Amino acid sequence: MSVIGVDVGGTKIAAGRRGPDLVATEPIVIPTPYGGMAIIEAIAALVAEIAAASPDPVRAVGVGLPATIDAVTGRVAHSVHTGMDDFDAAGALEAAVGLPVFLDNDANLAALAEHRLGAGRHHANVVLLTLGTGIGGGLIIDGEVFRGGRGHGAELGHISVDGNGPPCQGGCPNRGCIETMCSGTALGREFRAFAEANPATALGQLHAEGALDSRSGLALAREGDPDALAIVTTAGEWLGVAVTSLANTFDPDVILIGGGLSDAGELLLGPARDIYLQRALPPTRRAPLEVAALGPDAGMVGAALMAHEGVGG
Amino acid sequence: MSVIGVDVGGTKIAAGRRGPDLVATEPIVIPTPYGGMAIIEAIAALVAEIAAASPDPVRAVGVGLPATIDAVTGRVAHSVHTGMDDFDAAGALEAAVGLPVFLDNDANLAALAEHRLGAGRHHANVVLLTLGTGIGGGLIIDGEVFRGGRGHGAELGHISVDGNGPPCQGGCPNRGCIETMCSGTALGREFRAFAEANPATALGQLHAEGALDSRSGLALAREGDPDALAIVTTAGEWLGVAVTSLANTFDPDVILIGGGLSDAGELLLGPARDIYLQRALPPTRRAPLEVAALGPDAGMVGAALMAHEGVGG
Repeated sequence: MSVIGVDVGGTKIAAGRRGPDLVATEPIVIPTPYGGMAIIEAIAALVAEIAAASPDPVRAVGVGLPATIDAVTGRVAHSVHTGMDDFDAAGALEAAVGLPVFLDNDANLAALAEHRLGAGRHHANVVLLTLGTGIGGGLIIDGEVFRGGRGHGAELGHISVDGNGPPCQGGCPNRGCIETMCSGTALGREFRAFAEANPATALGQLHAEGALDSRSGLALAREGDPDALAIVTTAGEWLGVAVTSLANTFDPDVILIGGGLSDAGELLLGPARDIYLQRALPPTRRAPLEVAALGPDAGMVGAALMAHEGVGG
Repeated sequence: MSVIGVDVGGTKIAAGRRGPDLVATEPIVIPTPYGGMAIIEAIAALVAEIAAASPDPVRAVGVGLPATIDAVTGRVAHSVHTGMDDFDAAGALEAAVGLPVFLDNDANLAALAEHRLGAGRHHANVVLLTLGTGIGGGLIIDGEVFRGGRGHGAELGHISVDGNGPPCQGGCPNRGCIETMCSGTALGREFRAFAEANPATALGQLHAEGALDSRSGLALAREGDPDALAIVTTAGEWLGVAVTSLANTFDPDVILIGGGLSDAGELLLGPARDIYLQRALPPTRRAPLEVAALGPDAGMVGAALMAHEGVGG
C-alpha cells in the first residue's frame, strides 16, 4: 500500500510515491500553474500518473500548499503565491482523484518531516524557515506541529524585521518581512538592482547576458565575487534578525533553514548565526542554527507522512 | 487559608494577599532594589508583613519576576532589569520566608491572570504584551501558558521590529526591540530628546521644570499637545509592527496590551491597530487588539493564582 506526497511551491510542484516502507520513489516535478483550479488539475494529473505506475494500490494523497488552511472549515484561507483564497482545495482534489486527501501548509509539513526523519529528530521544539521563492515557517512545539490558533499561524516568513522596509510580495500587505529581505525573490531583486547600477561588474555582465537570477548570483558569491558576497551577507544578516526574534519567542532546541535556497549553506547561515549569537538573550542562544536535512524534498516527505498517518499508518 | 502574590517589576514590587475566595486585599507597593539578594530580602519583608496581618494562615507565595526561569533547573536564568543571573531565587526565598514559593516570569503570570479572570477569558489563544519600564510577553496556547522550549521563551518585548534600530537596554544585546521602541523607557527617552531639541515647546518647558517623564509626556499627549501626540503615535505604530508579526506567528484569538503604560489606551492602541489591520495576513487579522482587563495588578493576581494552584487550589 502506498501514499502520494505532493509539495506545491511558488515555482514548482513535486509529487512522489512512498511505499509501505515509506521509502521514496523519484519525484516528478512540474512548474506551478497560477490559480486554485489550475493547481488542482495539475495535481490530479500527477497523482493519476504516479498511481498508474504504482505496484500497489495508492491509499491516500497528502498535499502541502504555500497557503494557510483554516482549521475550522478545512478550506484554504489565504495564499501569498498561488492565488487561492477561501477555496475548498481538499474537496476539489478528492473529487478529482477519488482518494482521501490531506492538506497542510507546505512549511508545516517540512517541519513535520524534519522532526520525524531529519535534522529535528531528538528535539521537542523546532523552528524551521524554508527559503525559496518565498519564505515559509514551520514550528514543532512539544513534538507537535503548531499551526496557530485557527491554523493560520507559523507564517514566519511574514514577520517584519524592518518596520519601515520594502513592501512584501504577492498577497502579503506587510513591510520588511523576512521574505522580502532574504528569499530567492529578494536575492534576485538585490542582485539585479546592483547589476543595473554597476554594469561593469561580474553581476552586471551576467545581467547583460540575461543570465542573472538568485541561483546564478549565489554561484558568483560562492566563487568569491565580492559584490555578490556582500549582497548574500546582508540577506543572511536580516535572516539573523528574524532568527534572534524567533529564539527569544520560542526558545527552541534547534533552528533549521530549509528550502531550495538553503544550499547556499554558510554563505547565508554564517552571517545569520553571527547576528543571532550576538543579539539573542543569553539563555535563548542555546539552539544550533543548521541547514535542514531533507533538502527541497522535505515538504513532499511531510505530505506523504501526513497521508500515511491520516489513513492509520 | 490565604496565598500571597508578589509582582516584581523593573521599577516597583507589589505584593498582596488573596483569601480562600481569591478576593484581593489592597497591595503593598515598594520600589524595586537592584540585585538578586536585595530583591529577595525585600520580598521576604513584604511577605512577613502581609502574613502577620492575615486573618488566616498563609500557605504559599507566588512570585512574578521580570526574568526568564530555566524550566529544568528552576533557577532564574537571565533578567534584563534586576541583575539576576543563574540565581536560585525560589530556594533563596523559601529559606527566607519558610513557605512554599512558586516562581514564574511576570508577563507569563499576567497572561495567566488575564486568561483565567480577565480579558482573555473564553479565548484559547492569547498574546499579551505588558508595557511598563520594559515590555514583557505572555502567551496562552490552547489554554496553557507557553514558556518556550526550556522556559526562556515568550520574551516578546525582545523581538526586533527594526533590525538596524537602536540598541536595547539592560541585559538585552538586541537592536530595535519593541521594548526599545514602545516601552515607558522608550517614550521617556523620545520625549526628552524632543524637549532638548525644542525647548520652546510644551515638552521642552516640562523638561526645563525637571518634570518630564513618560507619564507626564503621555498626559500632554492626552491633552492634545501635537508634539507629544506625534511621539506616542510613532511608538504605537512600532507596537503595531510587532503585533502584526505576532498575529502572523500565533494566529491568536485576542491580543492584549497590559502593564502600566496600557492606560494610554487608544493613544497607543489606535495607531498600533491601524498598522496591524493594514499589514497582517488577511486570515490573521481576526484577533481584536484590546487593553488587558486587570490593569497593573495582573502580574500579582497571576502570582497568587499560581501559588493557589501550586498548593492544590
